Amino acid sequence: MSQPIRIGIAGLGTVGAGTVKLLREHAELLALRCGRPLQVVAASARDRKKDRGVDLAGIRLESDPLALATAPDIDVVVEVIGGSDGVARQVIETAIAGGKHVVTANKALLALHGSTIAAQAEAKGVILGFEAAVAGGIPIIKALREGLVGNRVKRLYGILNGTCNYILTTMRESGRDFADVLADAQKLGYAEADPSFDVDGIDAAHKLALLTAVAYGRPVDFAGVYVEGIRKVGALDIRFAEELDCRIKLLGLARETEHGIEQRVHPCLVPKTAPIASVDGVFNAVAVEGDFVGQTMFEGRGAGAGPTASAVVADLVAVARGHGLPAFVVPAARLASSPGSPIERHRGAYYLRLMVLDRPGVIADVTAALRDEQVSLESMLQHGRARGPDDTVPVVLTTHVTEEAAMRRALQRIAGLAMLREKPILIRIEDL
Amino acid sequence: MSQPIRIGIAGLGTVGAGTVKLLREHAELLALRCGRPLQVVAASARDRKKDRGVDLAGIRLESDPLALATAPDIDVVVEVIGGSDGVARQVIETAIAGGKHVVTANKALLALHGSTIAAQAEAKGVILGFEAAVAGGIPIIKALREGLVGNRVKRLYGILNGTCNYILTTMRESGRDFADVLADAQKLGYAEADPSFDVDGIDAAHKLALLTAVAYGRPVDFAGVYVEGIRKVGALDIRFAEELDCRIKLLGLARETEHGIEQRVHPCLVPKTAPIASVDGVFNAVAVEGDFVGQTMFEGRGAGAGPTASAVVADLVAVARGHGLPAFVVPAARLASSPGSPIERHRGAYYLRLMVLDRPGVIADVTAALRDEQVSLESMLQHGRARGPDDTVPVVLTTHVTEEAAMRRALQRIAGLAMLREKPILIRIEDL
Repeated sequence: MSQPIRIGIAGLGTVGAGTVKLLREHAELLALRCGRPLQVVAASARDRKKDRGVDLAGIRLESDPLALATAPDIDVVVEVIGGSDGVARQVIETAIAGGKHVVTANKALLALHGSTIAAQAEAKGVILGFEAAVAGGIPIIKALREGLVGNRVKRLYGILNGTCNYILTTMRESGRDFADVLADAQKLGYAEADPSFDVDGIDAAHKLALLTAVAYGRPVDFAGVYVEGIRKVGALDIRFAEELDCRIKLLGLARETEHGIEQRVHPCLVPKTAPIASVDGVFNAVAVEGDFVGQTMFEGRGAGAGPTASAVVADLVAVARGHGLPAFVVPAARLASSPGSPIERHRGAYYLRLMVLDRPGVIADVTAALRDEQVSLESMLQHGRARGPDDTVPVVLTTHVTEEAAMRRALQRIAGLAMLREKPILIRIEDL
Repeated sequence: MSQPIRIGIAGLGTVGAGTVKLLREHAELLALRCGRPLQVVAASARDRKKDRGVDLAGIRLESDPLALATAPDIDVVVEVIGGSDGVARQVIETAIAGGKHVVTANKALLALHGSTIAAQAEAKGVILGFEAAVAGGIPIIKALREGLVGNRVKRLYGILNGTCNYILTTMRESGRDFADVLADAQKLGYAEADPSFDVDGIDAAHKLALLTAVAYGRPVDFAGVYVEGIRKVGALDIRFAEELDCRIKLLGLARETEHGIEQRVHPCLVPKTAPIASVDGVFNAVAVEGDFVGQTMFEGRGAGAGPTASAVVADLVAVARGHGLPAFVVPAARLASSPGSPIERHRGAYYLRLMVLDRPGVIADVTAALRDEQVSLESMLQHGRARGPDDTVPVVLTTHVTEEAAMRRALQRIAGLAMLREKPILIRIEDL
């Protein structure tokens, strides 16, 4: 049995404590599977007295996480403090500068500074592991870097945020509206007090930016991700989607197009028969379409102490085994500088819901606006007449594949129609 | 850029030719992702003149595959000849003895001789890769060895044979019977002229034995797999399953029980809501339940040139990167000698279909037999009266969880009842 790999854990929150628990419970099993022990030497926490439900005996507790990054008796630092800058970044950069391997669950930081940090790690010959940063326990980073490495990725897409998927699933099952379900999710601890990071799609966009970098061997480009959240999705839309044999999911998608790599996070109508349509509740899933492997999908829990610790430990095991790779597979200097394709160049089908005054001529005006932009209609749904006091009815139109720019121009004209009583709701339809 | 890794491909059938195609098309991409070129130096084929739809220029063609195993200019041999003994085994063992790495898609061979061959590879310090042997393009071996390595596996189960899944899916969609659908599948090339390897569950059992060895760190124990195929599943059973909100799938399952590791391959009733119930047609899927990660599932194409080549190349890339591991994660000498649990100790619920003469008293006799073995009924389905000239009606009973031994004793008594006109059909119900 070789020397133990000595671990310092920066942050003893849910994930940090979960990681310590896993490493303790499976110490023997992991030593057997790695050929050497994984030993937690030290950890840092703001409050060193707090009970975290895990045995910390024999682990040196530091109040300053930077002490781990410089400690001579630590080989690998696990950063689970969080935050896209500040101390988390300092800990990671200091550890790397000192020749230590780094394992992190910090998607926000890597989405913004991943390319810089990856280059630092490469220059120092240390491993930067971030399996836990994307889709929790699903080993999707490893799948892209290793299991599917023989493929050119044609497209990847995923349910990357459990909070949004829980809310959309509950809306569908209960028929209730977004605000209502969000409030419940907050009570149950599935959504934060300030939910915008999740429900506005930012968290999913962080993860998508990392997946894209790994899949396409290009620098992390978070700024290039087009992002829409799920606040606009109404109970009405969920019902209309069902009628169209679809479900509404917040997806992160990346694909090669003739204009470059397209990255998008937004609510999507997906056919009920698509495997990802059945991924419900807090589960995450990532589908990868490779030119040789065809369709694959990976599903599991996207958050929580256990799944995230499982991913952190997978990276620690790779470190212990000495299985290093450039963070984004390709050496930093060789990352492709291929352009990103802007959302205006996106081609796809659309779902458009309008709340209109129930008067003759309104459909004629709407369809004329679409016609003038060469947007061709696939279907129209309208049920009965206005029943409410406000005299409006919902009208849903779906289009054939068209360019987003044309759709936007048509939408702008439609939004100006006098008969329209609410902002139109536009949701992209994905051909999965 | 380091030295190329030099590859010899033993066998230029579908998989071998697909592998050459992938390595050629993505030569540049793979060199970038590995830090060194993957170069096919030589290949072997019985008929060296045959057109395989792939460019073989610059590749030395041998008629004897053993020449690859001994060639001084080859670092890694890809064995895609097939067969559980004979030349495939000779090629692998000779290559290993000569210090070459081996990548194989040969589940039959590894299911029978995997432990021996793994020990040989370990003794020689070479890599034995077999990602392609299980579930085609799904990187499930890597997931167990790396991505989920931090978990104790509580249970794993999968759709491991695309032919069976295609037949069962088509039976459900068309309402047709097994023999009829099998004949069509043979015409379409989804089933072999001699289909027994697939439809009798043997192929799935080979794969399950390998998954179990990797997941539980024990020697491959194909003899310990309980196997039943899908020939007995009738169109009637598929319809009754629907009525019970279930689907019938051929699953391979392994789990820890108090009596040891249980390994089974047989048709199962699974709830329609279980993710694996929606995996249809020729797709494969493997679900892994880990104590930290919780439920995960991996889905993709289980066969075909592209998916299998994708898996072969994933192993070649690991070789090129120098990322070696013992074949079954744990060193051969440390594999657990934990016992296997026999099928008689299995505990689960059961579906029982009887074709009985439509006479008073028959249900009383059947339920008495179950009662006497302490098997408790969950539900009973019987529709109307006999309509056919043979005066029989199907009766379906489902039980609560019971021990298989008790169920078998009850079944033996039931099978002897005079009112029974066909052999009873027993299908296990899985709680997924």
